[in-house]
Amino acid sequence: MEDFTRKLITEWRRLDLPFSGKKIILAVSGGADSCSMAFALFQLQKAKKITNTFIVAHLNHNLRGQKSLDDASFTEELSNQLNFEFVTQKINSKPSKGKNLEEWARKKRYEFLLKTAERFGSKYILTAHTLNDQAETFLMNLIRGSGLEGLSGMKVMGSLRSEKEVFHVRPMLTWADRNDVTDFIKRNGIRHRNDEMNENSDFRRVKIRKELIPFLTKINPQIVQTLARTSILVGRENELLNCLINQEIDKRKLNDDSFLPLKKLGSLSEAMLYRVLRSWVLKNRGTLKKVSSTHIKSIALLVSGKKSGKFVELPGFSRVVKENGKLLFQITEVEK
Amino acid sequence: MEDFTRKLITEWRRLDLPFSGKKIILAVSGGADSCSMAFALFQLQKAKKITNTFIVAHLNHNLRGQKSLDDASFTEELSNQLNFEFVTQKINSKPSKGKNLEEWARKKRYEFLLKTAERFGSKYILTAHTLNDQAETFLMNLIRGSGLEGLSGMKVMGSLRSEKEVFHVRPMLTWADRNDVTDFIKRNGIRHRNDEMNENSDFRRVKIRKELIPFLTKINPQIVQTLARTSILVGRENELLNCLINQEIDKRKLNDDSFLPLKKLGSLSEAMLYRVLRSWVLKNRGTLKKVSSTHIKSIALLVSGKKSGKFVELPGFSRVVKENGKLLFQITEVEK
Repeated sequence: MEDFTRKLITEWRRLDLPFSGKKIILAVSGGADSCSMAFALFQLQKAKKITNTFIVAHLNHNLRGQKSLDDASFTEELSNQLNFEFVTQKINSKPSKGKNLEEWARKKRYEFLLKTAERFGSKYILTAHTLNDQAETFLMNLIRGSGLEGLSGMKVMGSLRSEKEVFHVRPMLTWADRNDVTDFIKRNGIRHRNDEMNENSDFRRVKIRKELIPFLTKINPQIVQTLARTSILVGRENELLNCLINQEIDKRKLNDDSFLPLKKLGSLSEAMLYRVLRSWVLKNRGTLKKVSSTHIKSIALLVSGKKSGKFVELPGFSRVVKENGKLLFQITEVEK
Repeated sequence: MEDFTRKLITEWRRLDLPFSGKKIILAVSGGADSCSMAFALFQLQKAKKITNTFIVAHLNHNLRGQKSLDDASFTEELSNQLNFEFVTQKINSKPSKGKNLEEWARKKRYEFLLKTAERFGSKYILTAHTLNDQAETFLMNLIRGSGLEGLSGMKVMGSLRSEKEVFHVRPMLTWADRNDVTDFIKRNGIRHRNDEMNENSDFRRVKIRKELIPFLTKINPQIVQTLARTSILVGRENELLNCLINQEIDKRKLNDDSFLPLKKLGSLSEAMLYRVLRSWVLKNRGTLKKVSSTHIKSIALLVSGKKSGKFVELPGFSRVVKENGKLLFQITEVEK
C-alpha cells in the first residue's frame, strides 16, 4: 500500500470511522487535496479495506463563470471514474458588497454539505484540509491579531449539528502536507483542477502561502508541521481553560446570565475578569463576532471604575450598562 | 514635554515606580534603545519630574575586542554627560562550545545587573526592551515551536530575586517601537553605538528583524503592536491556566510530588493530563529545560498504557517510571 493511503487508513482507524455499510460525504472542489482524498479512498475501496458508500459533493460557487462549470464537470467525471455517486449544486446569489468572500463561500459550502448529508442520511462529511491549511489559517489569524480562540487550530473531528449528529471529519489534517499530496498526485497520475479559488480569493492567504511559508521554511524546514502542532496545542489549552473557567463561574455563582454583580467581579484577577466578561457577553449576545479585545477591555475598565461613563457600546445594537452595582446587557435596537 | 518622554513618565506612574530618593539601575548597552531610555530619564531628572539616583550599568561581554572596549567608553562618556553614575565590568571567560551565545550573554548580563543592584542597595533594574523586542522574541519562539509558555511575552515588571526583592522593569515594553526610538534619537541628536551584538549574535533573530517583520508589515502595518499584544495576552491566559490547574491539582490530591497515582491520572482529560505531568516533572526536575512536548506525550502514553515499556527517559539523567500503579521520578545518574 502506498504511504499516503496507509496514513489515511491509520488515521481512519484512530478516529474510529466506520469501515463498511455507511454513507459518507466527500467534499470535493476538484483541487489537488480533495482529489487525492477521493482517490485514496477509491484505492481502499478497491482493496476492500473500506467498503462504505462514498458520495462526492461539489458546490459550484459560480464565481468564475465557465471555469466554475468546468470544475463541476471535471469533478463529476472523476466521481464516475471512481464509481462514487456525485451531487452538485450551483449558487445563484452573489455575496453582498463588503462581505468577506472567503467567509461567504465557506458558509454556502457547509450549508450545501449539511443538506447533502441530510438527504443521504449520512453522519459523516469529510473535507481534505491539510497541515498546510492549518498552518496558513494560524498565520492569517496571528497576523490579523487574535487571542487563544483565534489561534486554536481546526479540529480533526467536530460536530456540525447536535440533533441527528453530523460529524465534520478532516482525515488528512494531522499528517498530510502539500508535498505528500503532490507526490501522491504524481505517482498515480491523478488529474485535478487548479484551485483558482485558492489563488484569488484572499490576497493575504495567497501571500502567506506563496511567500511567507517559503520564507519561514528557510529558518525551520518543518515550519508547517510546527505551526500546525502549535495551533492544535493552543486549541487544547484554550478548551481546558474554558472548561476550568466555567467551573469557576459556577463556583463563584457568576452564572446568572442576566447580570453580573460588580462586587464579585472586583475580586477577580485581570485575566479571569476578561474571561468571565467574554463568556457572559457571548451568552447574552449569542456570538462574539465583531467584539474585539478592546470592547472587553472597556467593559473591564467600566467595572474597575477607571473608565468614566456608565456603558460600553457593542457592535450590533447592544451595550453593557453599569447600574446599581451590577453589569447589565441591553439590546439597544432590534436589528432589521 | 516630548511624546517619548511623556509616554515614559505615564508608564512610570502606571507601574507605581518611585519618583524620588531611590537608586535605580539602568542597563545600557550603548545601543539606540538603552541610550534613549537613559536620555529620557535625564530629561525628566532635569525637569525635576523624577529625582532618583540613576546608575548606568554596562557589561562588556568582551566578544568583539576593541569594539567592545569602545562601547564601554562610549557608555561611560554618555553617563558623565547625563551626570549618572557609571558601573562596568568586563567578562574574561568565553561561552563553552555548543552553548547558545545569546543565552550565555543574557545570563552574564543579569548576574552583573543583580550584583550591581545589590552593591548599591537598589530595588529596581531597568532594561530598554521595546515592542519590537517583544514581537521578535514571540516570532523566534513560534518558529522554533513553542507552547503557551514559550509564546508568553516578557513582562513589564517581574521579580528577579525573592528575598530582598529586586524588580526587573521594562518601562518601554508596552509603548515604544523602533520608530519611536529612532524619532527620539533624531530630534535630540542622541549619540549611540550600533548594537553589533544584535546584528550578529543569532542569524534567526536578524532574519526576523530585517526580513520577516518588514514582510509582515506589508500585510498588517501594525504587526509589531499586534504580536506584542498577542504575546502579552497569551502570557496572561497561560498564567491564569497555571493558577487554575494548580487549584485542580490540589483538589484532586495530585500534589504529592514524590509520585502520581495512575488511576487518578486516567480520569483526566488529555489537556489536563499533559499540564499535570508538566507541572509534576517541573517540581521534581527543577526545570523543564530540554524537556519537549514529545517527552510529556511519551509519559502520557505510558500512563494510558499505549506505550510499551515501563519508563520514559528524560534529558539530564532522569526518568519517569511506571511501577505499582504509580508514576515515579528517578535520577539515573548524578551529573558531574
